[in-house]
Amino acid sequence: MEKASIVSIGNELLSGQTVSTNASYLSEKLLSVGIPVVSCYTVADDIDQIVRALELASEDADAVMATGGLGPTDDDLTRQALAQFLGTELQLRSNLLQTIKDFFAKRGREMPAKCEVEAYIPAGAKALANNLGTAPGIMAEAHGKVPAKRGPKLLVALPGVPAEMKQMFEESVLGELQERAHSQAVAVRKLRCFGKGESEIAELLGGLMQRGRNPLINCTAHAGVITLCITATAKDKQQAEELAQKDEAMLRSILDRLVYGTGEQTLAEVVGEKLAQKGQTIAVAESCTGGVLAKLLTDVPGSSRYFTHGWITYSNEAKISELGVPAELIDEHGAVSQQVAEAMARGARKRAGTDFAVGITGIAGPAGGSEQKPVGLVYICVDSDSRCETQRFVFSHGRASTRIRAAQTALNMVRTRFCI
Amino acid sequence: MEKASIVSIGNELLSGQTVSTNASYLSEKLLSVGIPVVSCYTVADDIDQIVRALELASEDADAVMATGGLGPTDDDLTRQALAQFLGTELQLRSNLLQTIKDFFAKRGREMPAKCEVEAYIPAGAKALANNLGTAPGIMAEAHGKVPAKRGPKLLVALPGVPAEMKQMFEESVLGELQERAHSQAVAVRKLRCFGKGESEIAELLGGLMQRGRNPLINCTAHAGVITLCITATAKDKQQAEELAQKDEAMLRSILDRLVYGTGEQTLAEVVGEKLAQKGQTIAVAESCTGGVLAKLLTDVPGSSRYFTHGWITYSNEAKISELGVPAELIDEHGAVSQQVAEAMARGARKRAGTDFAVGITGIAGPAGGSEQKPVGLVYICVDSDSRCETQRFVFSHGRASTRIRAAQTALNMVRTRFCI
Repeated sequence: MEKASIVSIGNELLSGQTVSTNASYLSEKLLSVGIPVVSCYTVADDIDQIVRALELASEDADAVMATGGLGPTDDDLTRQALAQFLGTELQLRSNLLQTIKDFFAKRGREMPAKCEVEAYIPAGAKALANNLGTAPGIMAEAHGKVPAKRGPKLLVALPGVPAEMKQMFEESVLGELQERAHSQAVAVRKLRCFGKGESEIAELLGGLMQRGRNPLINCTAHAGVITLCITATAKDKQQAEELAQKDEAMLRSILDRLVYGTGEQTLAEVVGEKLAQKGQTIAVAESCTGGVLAKLLTDVPGSSRYFTHGWITYSNEAKISELGVPAELIDEHGAVSQQVAEAMARGARKRAGTDFAVGITGIAGPAGGSEQKPVGLVYICVDSDSRCETQRFVFSHGRASTRIRAAQTALNMVRTRFCI
Repeated sequence: MEKASIVSIGNELLSGQTVSTNASYLSEKLLSVGIPVVSCYTVADDIDQIVRALELASEDADAVMATGGLGPTDDDLTRQALAQFLGTELQLRSNLLQTIKDFFAKRGREMPAKCEVEAYIPAGAKALANNLGTAPGIMAEAHGKVPAKRGPKLLVALPGVPAEMKQMFEESVLGELQERAHSQAVAVRKLRCFGKGESEIAELLGGLMQRGRNPLINCTAHAGVITLCITATAKDKQQAEELAQKDEAMLRSILDRLVYGTGEQTLAEVVGEKLAQKGQTIAVAESCTGGVLAKLLTDVPGSSRYFTHGWITYSNEAKISELGVPAELIDEHGAVSQQVAEAMARGARKRAGTDFAVGITGIAGPAGGSEQKPVGLVYICVDSDSRCETQRFVFSHGRASTRIRAAQTALNMVRTRFCI
């Protein structure tokens, strides 16, 4: 197996009711055994459309994974489509029928008549056990199908319910694929960066992100975090790992402090871990972010080791009474000002008795902006024993984006400016 | 326009790094104007593959929506692929270049050279303004392309970043599609429910959720919120609206107070709007939810009308010093107890001087549980002028789920128990 293609089947996937996570799950798993997914097709519960998608997918790849449409209702048509594609008939397998009957008997119920259809499998195909539901999966080889350049194609049909699909894939499919996988091995590394945009990072990396290069370096952006994914391909695992490691080292030397972590690490995790290691603590005082920063910090299990106090001082009164921000400061400079951000951070650190405290005040929008103080303007202050530092930012992309970016930027200030 | 097809472009979509929500968003929006999506293609950042997908999509449908690959980096190839598909050249548009330069200038930065490529548009195509980012979208008509059965095809290329894609689609594409839409009309209604699970709601609705029924009623679940989507099809808009309205009334009578809102409304929006209408205010005191409730409340623009103060008292010391929770209460009953939840809510309401205050304390996990106090145990108290009510819950499905469900449940308690 060199390449895979995925066919997602179901009306609900085309009406926008369901966001399918199956394709991305399968893509990641397949890549991990050295079989990259090259295309995905999403089609309705319609025999002709399913057959066409199977044909397209088997033109693209030598392993085709279909999900959905194996249930007992009239709109579950993947079985029939698969038989048609293979040029065979569906056959009732009595052992499968018994398994389905047993599934219901165990739950004190009789098998609904509709479920009998799930015991039908294309002639010559293999049924895959479903330990969480009733519909078995199907594995078949398509011999001599167009275009059979590289020998037989492997076709697998899995249930659409994610939990059933995953268990079946891991128990009955992954091993088979691993055995058939092309001799090529793949190693994947992820570097997580914060502090510059996607285009700036791409400029720093220059030709490294060129397509067709091995390792391949891909870049994605989410909530201000830039993830660089290094995918190295080689003859064996060790070579692939070495290639990936070499690129990782190169990226790290180019991007330096922009890289804050690896894999799925969040900024809050990395900052929190450093604080825990040093036995330091942090408190937050938020206005425009309204709890986003506290949430990011406490998303991390064990964050109570270093996070103790948070204030959301959304009104001026709260800033004054809870954090001791002088009323005159607000009168003079406005609630969104460097001075108030500083007074918030200092007040929070004093009350909480922590090593660090963050103060954030800004205009998340959509309303409330002015010429001097536009929507997206945010002041972030980090106060510590040694010093107090405030920065001014103007974020864009609307309220939600401004809030999450401001909170992430605050974490990044703690990371980079205070060398924790 | 009778049918649409979607082409999602990006290596990250095929490596399993990103779950694309763009296709489901577009599917839903297109269906709402009577243009069902009949297929989706996901391909890599590769010119040939993008062109092939555009060809397949335009065989399936007369409106083709592509997302992704419009950025400034070398692996953003949608512009070139679109020009190739249309059989035209890319042209530099000086007005677009100026807009991109202005975008950076506003932020006090110079345009990175890489971004110039974003000002190139296929000859004859229209650029779509991007109010959140730099890359404009593209709208073009493909005349005489294979197979041009039903006249010209509409091709639209949108950014892959969901926020940019959505705003551009709603501002510059939806209206155009509506004008060209086929005569069949579709009306969509969404009811948002909280308080029971998906299967319980399905059981209450019985045969109403049958497939093939018109209107079609679909059910999705997210963060404890059950969304029922009613899709009615009829000859004209009025008939479709009437059908949908009838079903909405029926669902409302069955589900009663479980229904909290419509459309995309969140619980925080609905509760907040009620508070604003009555001129009432709310404060929160969070322990295990660590800011999630405050974040939900302040996600809503204008929430400063009713939300003033929040405390995240993650440590016992914070509960004592900031909210006046008696130390003996924590010693006697533990920090996760009905008594402490109550003291937190009362303390918060007293300090903030609000009409309502919520206190939440629990064990989000994964560690910290015991026989008597398992992971997922949460006490939620709502204090008001008239009374103080505390409920005990045991949530499952892990830390993140427990935190969001606890926060949502707190909002639902304010909604249902205090009849606001």
